[in-house]
Amino acid sequence: MTSQDFNVAVRSTLRGAGQVMFQQSAWTGLLFLAGIFWGAYESHTPLVAYGAVVGLIASTIAGLFTAPSRTPGEAGLWGFNGILVGCAFPTFLGSTWQMWVALIFCSMLTTWVRAGLNNVMAPWKVNSLTFPFVLLTWIFLLASRMMDGIAPDALSTPALTEHFSTTLDTSFGSLVQYWLKGVSQVFLINSWVTGIFFLVGLALCSRWAAFWAAAGSAISLAVAIIFKADAADIAGGLFGFSPVLTAIALGCTFYKPGVKTAIWTVVGVIATVFVQAGMDAYFAPFGLPTLTGPFCITTWLFLLPLFKLNPQTPPTHAEWDSEWDRFVSRLRDKKDSTK
Amino acid sequence: MTSQDFNVAVRSTLRGAGQVMFQQSAWTGLLFLAGIFWGAYESHTPLVAYGAVVGLIASTIAGLFTAPSRTPGEAGLWGFNGILVGCAFPTFLGSTWQMWVALIFCSMLTTWVRAGLNNVMAPWKVNSLTFPFVLLTWIFLLASRMMDGIAPDALSTPALTEHFSTTLDTSFGSLVQYWLKGVSQVFLINSWVTGIFFLVGLALCSRWAAFWAAAGSAISLAVAIIFKADAADIAGGLFGFSPVLTAIALGCTFYKPGVKTAIWTVVGVIATVFVQAGMDAYFAPFGLPTLTGPFCITTWLFLLPLFKLNPQTPPTHAEWDSEWDRFVSRLRDKKDSTK
Amino acid sequence: MTSQDFNVAVRSTLRGAGQVMFQQSAWTGLLFLAGIFWGAYESHTPLVAYGAVVGLIASTIAGLFTAPSRTPGEAGLWGFNGILVGCAFPTFLGSTWQMWVALIFCSMLTTWVRAGLNNVMAPWKVNSLTFPFVLLTWIFLLASRMMDGIAPDALSTPALTEHFSTTLDTSFGSLVQYWLKGVSQVFLINSWVTGIFFLVGLALCSRWAAFWAAAGSAISLAVAIIFKADAADIAGGLFGFSPVLTAIALGCTFYKPGVKTAIWTVVGVIATVFVQAGMDAYFAPFGLPTLTGPFCITTWLFLLPLFKLNPQTPPTHAEWDSEWDRFVSRLRDKKDSTK
Repeated sequence: MTSQDFNVAVRSTLRGAGQVMFQQSAWTGLLFLAGIFWGAYESHTPLVAYGAVVGLIASTIAGLFTAPSRTPGEAGLWGFNGILVGCAFPTFLGSTWQMWVALIFCSMLTTWVRAGLNNVMAPWKVNSLTFPFVLLTWIFLLASRMMDGIAPDALSTPALTEHFSTTLDTSFGSLVQYWLKGVSQVFLINSWVTGIFFLVGLALCSRWAAFWAAAGSAISLAVAIIFKADAADIAGGLFGFSPVLTAIALGCTFYKPGVKTAIWTVVGVIATVFVQAGMDAYFAPFGLPTLTGPFCITTWLFLLPLFKLNPQTPPTHAEWDSEWDRFVSRLRDKKDSTK
Repeated sequence: MTSQDFNVAVRSTLRGAGQVMFQQSAWTGLLFLAGIFWGAYESHTPLVAYGAVVGLIASTIAGLFTAPSRTPGEAGLWGFNGILVGCAFPTFLGSTWQMWVALIFCSMLTTWVRAGLNNVMAPWKVNSLTFPFVLLTWIFLLASRMMDGIAPDALSTPALTEHFSTTLDTSFGSLVQYWLKGVSQVFLINSWVTGIFFLVGLALCSRWAAFWAAAGSAISLAVAIIFKADAADIAGGLFGFSPVLTAIALGCTFYKPGVKTAIWTVVGVIATVFVQAGMDAYFAPFGLPTLTGPFCITTWLFLLPLFKLNPQTPPTHAEWDSEWDRFVSRLRDKKDSTK
Repeated sequence: MTSQDFNVAVRSTLRGAGQVMFQQSAWTGLLFLAGIFWGAYESHTPLVAYGAVVGLIASTIAGLFTAPSRTPGEAGLWGFNGILVGCAFPTFLGSTWQMWVALIFCSMLTTWVRAGLNNVMAPWKVNSLTFPFVLLTWIFLLASRMMDGIAPDALSTPALTEHFSTTLDTSFGSLVQYWLKGVSQVFLINSWVTGIFFLVGLALCSRWAAFWAAAGSAISLAVAIIFKADAADIAGGLFGFSPVLTAIALGCTFYKPGVKTAIWTVVGVIATVFVQAGMDAYFAPFGLPTLTGPFCITTWLFLLPLFKLNPQTPPTHAEWDSEWDRFVSRLRDKKDSTK
């Protein structure tokens, strides 16, 4: 492997982290990873961060085995489902060696399942978003209830009805924390500091994406409070992460920013909150988390009408690539000069 | 808004009520609404009728915001999902202001989700039927279990197994009531008088539709009794409403009436009863009603083989339009003469 | 009906049994039926075998009513879902006359539903596999909980969590039995002798199919043991039957045997075990068996990427046809000579 190859490999892998929020930028991915490490250590679950790295690498490698072209891999499209698998497995399952084997296997499967689901959805000009991660992680988390090798240590207990409190601390400082946790929970991290990492990472690549992530979390927080949803979930940011993704997807990824787009995005964000609450209730008897399922379902429903708002032209990330190259060449220069 | 515009708006909206049973007629819609008001007041739940009106209007207006053409709206195709949302919300949820906001929001969503689902299904020459109503109402009813603002006051308690009695009063008078309630439950109304309203409304527009609605309810009643289904559900018409819709859909909407069509329709109606019973059992742990889901699923399964029975040519409703115009002009003449 | 017609009818029907494992051979079908009869009598549930025959015939006849061409019927493609319905109903439901009516009705429906689902899936070059059987049997088994006429006598009790033991007898003799039962459970038969019947039947038509069935059961057994799955299910072959079908489908039916195909098939077989365990957990609250659902879902996921491994050219079964003709003509000769 030449240093050029290594450079491409690292950049492609980091972009996989960035693509979870639709950003084809290695820098954004690096900040996301930093946020994950911060949050994982803060909550004394460092394995979540290492799982993220393992899942990211495994799913990216899986693409190399099968893809006719490396273009999607270099855009980070092989890794974004795998990194989420890597966050989810150590969050919900006990750390056995079988769990790590399953984590790697499941991460690799996401890349292949993504290829298949994208084929299915191509006629309607939508893609599978993070659904390969969602579907496969649901399967493995459910399987953990039938397999002692991957025990469901941190999954909820299956229950027919959830009792919940609506008593919420609504001081300004608390609301800001819920709002930032709505962003951090995109990667299953419960930390407002991580939320800041993620917003900064987004702003590095696209100010619109940072705006819509912030707006999506804020709007969903307001809707959840107005409709008196489960206070613990609100405080943990669990009503925020899917709307954050819906907001970035509709607000500045699949449509170009504009007035019509903004209205449609707000409607989509509000809808996501109800889909989140509905799926929470639906999954209670299985003790299963919704993951980013509410985002996928709502975004599909809002893209499928094929309304002509402000159709997006593919964004160019050339500046980020050259930026990265400049950074690496500066590093190499330094290394050379220290010889 | 000119009186001409108002005329079109009222006609289009009323047709939305008629399209629930595939009738593009404002008169039929008017009789359906009359039946809904009768049944809602009879059972001391008048909010169901007002919800129906609100949902019908909200979903029709939603179409104006986004549709490139008004043709489907004028055929009543924007309103038929919304009126069902409007019947369902006050039936199952407590009347809070948040519930009414959610009712309006969900009704509007049906129009947009319908556009998307129809795009998905177009290649197989089927459409989304009442599934936008079904899907979105499932989501909001489930969400009500996680949101105190829209409390699930009249939803069933989630349960793993349903205990039911098969002791049924099978006197002739009772059977006639069950049969008519099978028709009225299409709009979630439990009243045999409303069933008569609906059958008359159908006959105004299409005798075949009235025949198949009556036959669908009768056949499903017989199947449910023969297979000893839940007596309370049979008595409430809950095994009838989906077969009624399947019967109209297959018997005289998507196929032209004829011997082959009739046989296929009877098979479809019988199948719908099993799908209804199966979905009842599936939804018990969620305490969720099936709504018209069994009709959608069965009708799709019976249309997808694309068998060539008697393919339907689009029916002309010109006579109903001119009839409506004559009625309105008569009213206007009267109004003028009383000046 | 001429003796020629009768000949074709018997051959087409028997091929329906063979097509459950993708073999268009009446001899294979005959051995499968023999295995079913052996297993059904061994476990004192002979009705399962007669149900299989009734379901096979009913679904094959259903094709005659609607199909524009008899070609798929003569390849056995009308019968393979029906024979599985016929095995499943007497396995899980009490033997009432309504159950037998439902069995015949549901078997016939599979043929029509298959036509529809194949239309849906055609654009992605996959077909509905055994999913018509799976979907319709789920519906009728669920319906049995709401209908006393078809009581769910042998279905599991719905439960939120399954308690299971991982204490497994792993003596060599036991492992061989589990392995063979993994094959026999394809037709819901719990008998290692039947497993031998099935493997021999496969080998008669295709050695690759026999190899992959054996390998699929062995690999899935190993994975289930390594991940410490439910011991009772492992011992009953319940982690084996779906992987067996995945193995035959991927290993030598939809792809031509080869190194790449073999690797992909092994990955698919391992994935099927997790899908099986996941669906077991998902269906626990409904007390519903997964049937061959895990096979369908996994095989679709592994075909949909449309990877170019070794694309299969349609296999010729001409030799089996001529073999059958020779056999029948020999019989006829004998009969003639005894006159």
